[in-house]
Amino acid sequence: MGKNLTKRSEDYSRWYNELVVKADMAENSAVRGCMVIKPYGFAIWEKMQAELDRMFKETGHENAYFPLFVPKHLFEAEEKNAEGFAKECAVVTHYRLKNDPDNPGKLIVDPEAKLEEELVVRPTSEAIIWSTYKNWIQSYRDLPIKINQWANVVRWEMRTRLFLRTAEFLWQEGHTAHATKKEALEETELMNDIYAEFAENFMAIPVIKGAKTENERFAGALETYCIEALMQDGKALQAGTSHFLGQNFARAFDVKFATQEGGLEHVWATSWGVSTRLMGALIMTHSDDNGLVLPPKLAPTQVVIVPIYKGEEQLKQISEVANELVQELKAAGISVKYDNRDTQKPGWKFAQYELQGVPVRLALGPKDLEKGTVELARRDTLTKEFVKREEVVEKVKALMTEIQDTLFEKARKFRDEHITEVDTFDEFKKVLKEKGGFISAHWDGTPETENRIKELTKATIRCIPFNGPKEPGKCVLTGKDSARRVLFAKAY
Amino acid sequence: MGKNLTKRSEDYSRWYNELVVKADMAENSAVRGCMVIKPYGFAIWEKMQAELDRMFKETGHENAYFPLFVPKHLFEAEEKNAEGFAKECAVVTHYRLKNDPDNPGKLIVDPEAKLEEELVVRPTSEAIIWSTYKNWIQSYRDLPIKINQWANVVRWEMRTRLFLRTAEFLWQEGHTAHATKKEALEETELMNDIYAEFAENFMAIPVIKGAKTENERFAGALETYCIEALMQDGKALQAGTSHFLGQNFARAFDVKFATQEGGLEHVWATSWGVSTRLMGALIMTHSDDNGLVLPPKLAPTQVVIVPIYKGEEQLKQISEVANELVQELKAAGISVKYDNRDTQKPGWKFAQYELQGVPVRLALGPKDLEKGTVELARRDTLTKEFVKREEVVEKVKALMTEIQDTLFEKARKFRDEHITEVDTFDEFKKVLKEKGGFISAHWDGTPETENRIKELTKATIRCIPFNGPKEPGKCVLTGKDSARRVLFAKAY
Repeated sequence: MGKNLTKRSEDYSRWYNELVVKADMAENSAVRGCMVIKPYGFAIWEKMQAELDRMFKETGHENAYFPLFVPKHLFEAEEKNAEGFAKECAVVTHYRLKNDPDNPGKLIVDPEAKLEEELVVRPTSEAIIWSTYKNWIQSYRDLPIKINQWANVVRWEMRTRLFLRTAEFLWQEGHTAHATKKEALEETELMNDIYAEFAENFMAIPVIKGAKTENERFAGALETYCIEALMQDGKALQAGTSHFLGQNFARAFDVKFATQEGGLEHVWATSWGVSTRLMGALIMTHSDDNGLVLPPKLAPTQVVIVPIYKGEEQLKQISEVANELVQELKAAGISVKYDNRDTQKPGWKFAQYELQGVPVRLALGPKDLEKGTVELARRDTLTKEFVKREEVVEKVKALMTEIQDTLFEKARKFRDEHITEVDTFDEFKKVLKEKGGFISAHWDGTPETENRIKELTKATIRCIPFNGPKEPGKCVLTGKDSARRVLFAKAY
Repeated sequence: MGKNLTKRSEDYSRWYNELVVKADMAENSAVRGCMVIKPYGFAIWEKMQAELDRMFKETGHENAYFPLFVPKHLFEAEEKNAEGFAKECAVVTHYRLKNDPDNPGKLIVDPEAKLEEELVVRPTSEAIIWSTYKNWIQSYRDLPIKINQWANVVRWEMRTRLFLRTAEFLWQEGHTAHATKKEALEETELMNDIYAEFAENFMAIPVIKGAKTENERFAGALETYCIEALMQDGKALQAGTSHFLGQNFARAFDVKFATQEGGLEHVWATSWGVSTRLMGALIMTHSDDNGLVLPPKLAPTQVVIVPIYKGEEQLKQISEVANELVQELKAAGISVKYDNRDTQKPGWKFAQYELQGVPVRLALGPKDLEKGTVELARRDTLTKEFVKREEVVEKVKALMTEIQDTLFEKARKFRDEHITEVDTFDEFKKVLKEKGGFISAHWDGTPETENRIKELTKATIRCIPFNGPKEPGKCVLTGKDSARRVLFAKAY
């Protein structure tokens, strides 16, 4: 199985597409640009959801659910947001199909069932949520509101790729309302920090925290904070965003509150989200030419046990030990699967679990029984060793942490080696072409220069990093004054 | 708060609507027929989801995600299913809005962005899923497939009511594929049993398991099994359904598999679902004129502690004991909230938690501190007692089970008292009018008679119960032969 994968060095993009499908993560559907997330891929997404949900609740957020549809007059209320999403939204215009009089068995849209007002399938929910918050907020006592929603959204992208850019995707979107600018800004930063913590500690993906430039901001936001990750091909991937929306949506939907001092003010807002796009980041950060590599915290199956046997009697003896191991590993909190199917050979199983990124594989044959050993293979390093039967559980427990850490460190090292400071535009182009990664360069702060660099190189400013160098300099393109370096990259 | 609710005896329907909104469960949105599920209501739904999801996985089902949209040609492939849902489906016809040249700031549908083929927003996912299964199934080795999806669906209902009937609702839909009819029928029954177990043991709602008549079957199913509950106003509510789809969808989408014996056969299918409608069943089974009554297993907060104090010093002393109680109750696995807000009076808090159905309320005042007692109030019985401080945790733990059981028994008694056997149509009408509930009566087995009874009385056959009496008799309307009694009722 794994052997049929295109190599990353040959065609990274093709490797990615093949891997997503062959590892049973997702596939394209009969609907243009929409994907089917298959059980194995969905099990990984569920682990991500559970951890994020826990982090959100721990920081005082509650879940709720708002409608899928946004009536057009609400959609257009916040002008910049509307402008940003109008070009790529699915629109419901009718509420009934009827039999086609000319083609028996076929259906057509019933022209008599036209909606009085069109409904936009939500590309994001600020509009519908702030039209609701208007009724919930009268006084400072009603604030803050800190709500998250797990939902599907639709953006009619023209060029789509599994997980990375799909017409429909799954995400969570937080929408909070605050009495002060300060509190809203703190929330924006807190949630960006939570995303960073999640990406690094749970997904083993190192990220850079920073602010977006005006060009790259969310439509309707005054500030967009983000976490940026680096993929193995040297392209950046925006892994999560947190927006400070100021009073824009409160103004658009007339949401005011009575202050403690007796005044009447517009409410301050934030929104923040991560999506199934993170699945793409996961794949492109850790996986290799043999298939998926999963950090233990995200692996639906952390350990697989494969018996190697001839005949029923051998299988019976091996199964006895294997089943003991299953019980012991489960008791240690490790998810384990004993694959004793007789429809597939061990070699096929090895390749399959390698392709699907199971962190640890244990193999048990007749010789192992004699010697009291187990063959242990690590997916991340592709190394094997023999472990004493009685030491397996402790060894595996330790490996769960070690593999998680190793994957993070490997990715961090790669990322750090791919942040290059440049001071001339020639260098900029050379590094971008030959090495890729993040380019740390001075920029004069104007959208025009940013656009020009994008036209010339396809690189965009990924972020103004919060923790980067802060000395002034000269813009790499225009030579004008620059307050500080920013990070450029080609991006997904 | 609670005092402002309409009484059930005055206007049951109004009581329900007020309760849903005032208890912060849900409210109507700006989109016709679509609801906003508020955090408190959503927290209850999340508990239901978690338990159902556990039960599904325990029985070998996996989660996945399929597209929101169904292209028209797939939607119309299974004729009966299409016919059943075409009359009430939301249709996406365009993928872009543009600026209205006549009205600055307004948007209109861009006529140049018309889809080549219309997309139906899924009212249910058999069509899109079976068009996918076609690619997943070649051989008996690929079977069974047992997948569940948590999703939103849209059915353009004309008359909507919060939770009970909304244009968009949340649900889970299981879709399984099997090699044999027997296996598919077993799955259909298993999932109906799981729904019954969930309703009774988790939601404390007694249900009757049975089969639907042809008239009431899911569009495209050969058999629909269901669980039927009885609401306090004597109307029935279908709380879950499980469908045996035969080979209908396999035929419509040409899904065949190579059998172990070398043949080629159509695959057998089931589908099954429960929805946010269960929230309506929950409310109408247990709640009273003071508000919501929640079984402990579903209560987001199982215990609330309210301090009764004058001045900071008293609050400090009370809080010391209260915080100890919080720690002890949490350690016992009970979700507890200490409401020490100084913005609201104890009386307001009492009414609020009564309205929201918190199962147990503890109140602590200066006299309690002196005596070493706590005042404990039960929401279900509205009774109060004083409990010794050191006995609180044991008492509350026991109450969690006791309240759960009491609610179920109370609802079961009510339901059992409202199953009436009748043998004449006059009796039928009299019981329906004066008492309501389920009417156990003979029926000649024809859709015509069923329809006629519906026209005359608004009662429908809720189910042919699996465990009801099985002796033959004469149809209550036509006097023709009847194999057995069935259950009629007016229904939500």
